[in-house]
Amino acid sequence: MNGAQALLETLVAGGVDTCFANPGTTEMQLVAALDDVPAIRPVLSLFEGVCTGAADGYGRITGRPALTVMHLGPGLANGLANLHNARRARTPLINLVGDHATWHRNADAPLTSDIVSLATPMSNWVREATSAQGLAADGAAALTAALQPPGGIATLIIPQDCQWDPATGPASIAQPAAPSLASAGTIETTAQALQNSQTAVLLLGASALTEAGLRAAARVQAASNCRVYIETFAARRDGGAGLPNFDRLPYFPEPAIEALGDADTLVLAGALDPVSFFGYPDLPSRLAPETASLHLLAAPPDNAAAALNAVADLLGAPGDVAPPLTERPSSPTGKLDVTSLGQALVAHLPENAIVVNEAATSAAGFDALSAAAPPHTVLGLTGGAIGQGLPTAVGAAVAAPDRQVLAFQADGSGMYTVQSLWTMAREALDVTVVIAANNAYRILQVELHRSGIDEPGPSARSLTDLGNPRLDWATIAQGFGLPASRVGSAEELSAALERSFAEPGPSLIEAAL
Amino acid sequence: MNGAQALLETLVAGGVDTCFANPGTTEMQLVAALDDVPAIRPVLSLFEGVCTGAADGYGRITGRPALTVMHLGPGLANGLANLHNARRARTPLINLVGDHATWHRNADAPLTSDIVSLATPMSNWVREATSAQGLAADGAAALTAALQPPGGIATLIIPQDCQWDPATGPASIAQPAAPSLASAGTIETTAQALQNSQTAVLLLGASALTEAGLRAAARVQAASNCRVYIETFAARRDGGAGLPNFDRLPYFPEPAIEALGDADTLVLAGALDPVSFFGYPDLPSRLAPETASLHLLAAPPDNAAAALNAVADLLGAPGDVAPPLTERPSSPTGKLDVTSLGQALVAHLPENAIVVNEAATSAAGFDALSAAAPPHTVLGLTGGAIGQGLPTAVGAAVAAPDRQVLAFQADGSGMYTVQSLWTMAREALDVTVVIAANNAYRILQVELHRSGIDEPGPSARSLTDLGNPRLDWATIAQGFGLPASRVGSAEELSAALERSFAEPGPSLIEAAL
Repeated sequence: MNGAQALLETLVAGGVDTCFANPGTTEMQLVAALDDVPAIRPVLSLFEGVCTGAADGYGRITGRPALTVMHLGPGLANGLANLHNARRARTPLINLVGDHATWHRNADAPLTSDIVSLATPMSNWVREATSAQGLAADGAAALTAALQPPGGIATLIIPQDCQWDPATGPASIAQPAAPSLASAGTIETTAQALQNSQTAVLLLGASALTEAGLRAAARVQAASNCRVYIETFAARRDGGAGLPNFDRLPYFPEPAIEALGDADTLVLAGALDPVSFFGYPDLPSRLAPETASLHLLAAPPDNAAAALNAVADLLGAPGDVAPPLTERPSSPTGKLDVTSLGQALVAHLPENAIVVNEAATSAAGFDALSAAAPPHTVLGLTGGAIGQGLPTAVGAAVAAPDRQVLAFQADGSGMYTVQSLWTMAREALDVTVVIAANNAYRILQVELHRSGIDEPGPSARSLTDLGNPRLDWATIAQGFGLPASRVGSAEELSAALERSFAEPGPSLIEAAL
Repeated sequence: MNGAQALLETLVAGGVDTCFANPGTTEMQLVAALDDVPAIRPVLSLFEGVCTGAADGYGRITGRPALTVMHLGPGLANGLANLHNARRARTPLINLVGDHATWHRNADAPLTSDIVSLATPMSNWVREATSAQGLAADGAAALTAALQPPGGIATLIIPQDCQWDPATGPASIAQPAAPSLASAGTIETTAQALQNSQTAVLLLGASALTEAGLRAAARVQAASNCRVYIETFAARRDGGAGLPNFDRLPYFPEPAIEALGDADTLVLAGALDPVSFFGYPDLPSRLAPETASLHLLAAPPDNAAAALNAVADLLGAPGDVAPPLTERPSSPTGKLDVTSLGQALVAHLPENAIVVNEAATSAAGFDALSAAAPPHTVLGLTGGAIGQGLPTAVGAAVAAPDRQVLAFQADGSGMYTVQSLWTMAREALDVTVVIAANNAYRILQVELHRSGIDEPGPSARSLTDLGNPRLDWATIAQGFGLPASRVGSAEELSAALERSFAEPGPSLIEAAL
């Protein structure tokens, strides 16, 4: 047994069953070892950003870490943007990054770089293996780092000799602790604060956005009359008919400040104290009023649903609060725009679907109506590093073969990791990709306007426009092996959605806005 | 005038005229300032790896830095792989990376990350701007860092408030020093060593691979009878009919060690002391025999051509050495394979073309015959971070609109930065892309074999195979706006090359191997 085999056997014992890989020469022993450890399914991608985004999607759905396999510093670098999102999503994830043999590093061969410096900003835990004998224990430590709350991104750098030298066997693994529960004192103080306030706001994030968390939040709201928001960019949230539905805290700071403006009490359940996504002149970073008292009921890694239920019990809330009945919209007709696009998606979404939403400025219609869709789970862009949607859809589909995945994707951001389409085709994943094709970096056009530039010159126009030439997404998808079509009306979109959801395997619909 | 405007005016005064951009909200003031500084041409890409690779190609051709504009840590991360290649190529290049306003960083908003930690491994110089008043001087320092020998990658991180706050005006810039010349003592010692050796090897790199450097090396060879090799991965080298032609030092360590094996003297002119690209069990990192005496005639940033000519003069070499006459091969016929592919490219290459060669295992036929092609310049993969070819072709074509560009590209590596095709179409660049489509990570299959795995199992096979589904490059290219075709015979390839070289603008030929 060599180091690579001992490592993979350790990881399997810890529940790892999937590896999103884009290997090179320094990972050949890991690749070979995968044939000795068939419990791990290897999924090849054509670009590392697909691997890391897929591992993020997999981890958000299963709660277990997938592996990535990447090639030295440059390979890791290609995966960092989606690791950034995964770190912000607090997804458990283990990166295996190959490196030159320990004795070859000083040669400064062309692919040499400072991998630790690259890995550290987007990892919660980084280690360089130093021997094959120790590699299995390094893997066990990576598992703990990924799963032990607060968990997150564990990056293990593995010189080639640590893969190919002999090892004695797998290492023993530790059971991760359960998420923390709020103390009785915190629950009591929070309940009192809510009871004594007429303007309290409850902000939900992380595990408060599961079905259990949302129902608990509805109980708290019923008993205290607080306003409830969900965090602006949630890693994962359940939604749809039969579930309580709360507004997202707005993206831009002005409406977010307005939403929170009169609150004397802010209770955080799984959410962070909200800050502006970007800094703007004359606006603060922090969005809540300075005068509001802050109550941290549950940090993001904690069990927010249990904490909310405990508060609700103290407040004497009913055992369950029936959410308002919602009527599912019918198939829209006529012009395709952001509104009819969202309506069509809600009208045709299958039961228990996973919606990966990176539709950016085209998401408003869906967001407004999705409470009326059948129950579903939404995975969002957490770190603002665009190019997250398509890879995350890959990972979600691998994680949940019994659920249909809708990748609702803006055209500009979709291009960063377009190679995802090939992995969808290769693995026959049940993903329906809907491209909201507005042929622009629309958010940047909005931001130019916010900067006071109402008439951009030719340079600024050219750097925010994607229309010359128009990206022909349907043709590109066909080149990657997906059935694909372009639709220009709401009726065409509805027909294409029905077809795609009825058939197994991936397909792409380019919705021309 | 704001900081962004003062910065761009400073850079223009330093010779900057091109900006490869993929901006976001934190770069909006830079984008807007481009309209006030029309001397800088903005070139939009759909992915940051295209920006950095294009700036690398631009810098290799012009010797001047292009700008990139990228979006905080994740945007820079997407560009790092090709910055790694550019750093190894010693290309002058300036990255402008936007960041949150200085007062917004502590809020840890979703896009916040440690940009310095990310930038450092792939940069020769990193600075965080701290004020709008100082930003122009930061830009002048970046210019110096990029151009002053040894030069290289300068990364300037620019918080938003340093862009939008007022500034007084551009900063003054320093003239970079000329490349160093070897001392008289070094020249004399080197000449003596060559004269006294029967087995000396002269290894050429960097500026020794210009036409002047190659002619100087031929003079040294004629007067000393040394063997001459060129470095395995050259950033830029001139070649073709009428120029001296030397073998590349082989890629794999065994044949490289054999090539150098009996040398008692190794002279480095612009090249580094050669090391194995990867470490292998029982093989050394350093390729030259320990017993050979090492003579550093010129470091990579030095003027190697002048040093070689000085040595040749001392050795009493003739003023010019006529290279052997080469006969240009005719158009091949029949089966398309690596040999006929190379023959067709050499048979049809236009005069003075730039060849961006990332064809990997499919390059052998071209490499063997290219001395018989019309004079041309080859840009190679320097750092081993694949996905360099298509972006570098973009930058080379922007830099030299009067030269045709051939992007000779392997399919696996081409996929990493496939978004380059769109920028080629958008800017109507005169690039002929030839995809060597073998539907595999062939080099990894070779490496598995080298690791002793002659019969890979299903996991290793699946992680090195690109055939399921086959990537339809011609269709993908059409989706990005390029005319494209797929050819399956040598005759079809020749006809497609003739057509493409005759017509302006980009096109893609998928050569099915």
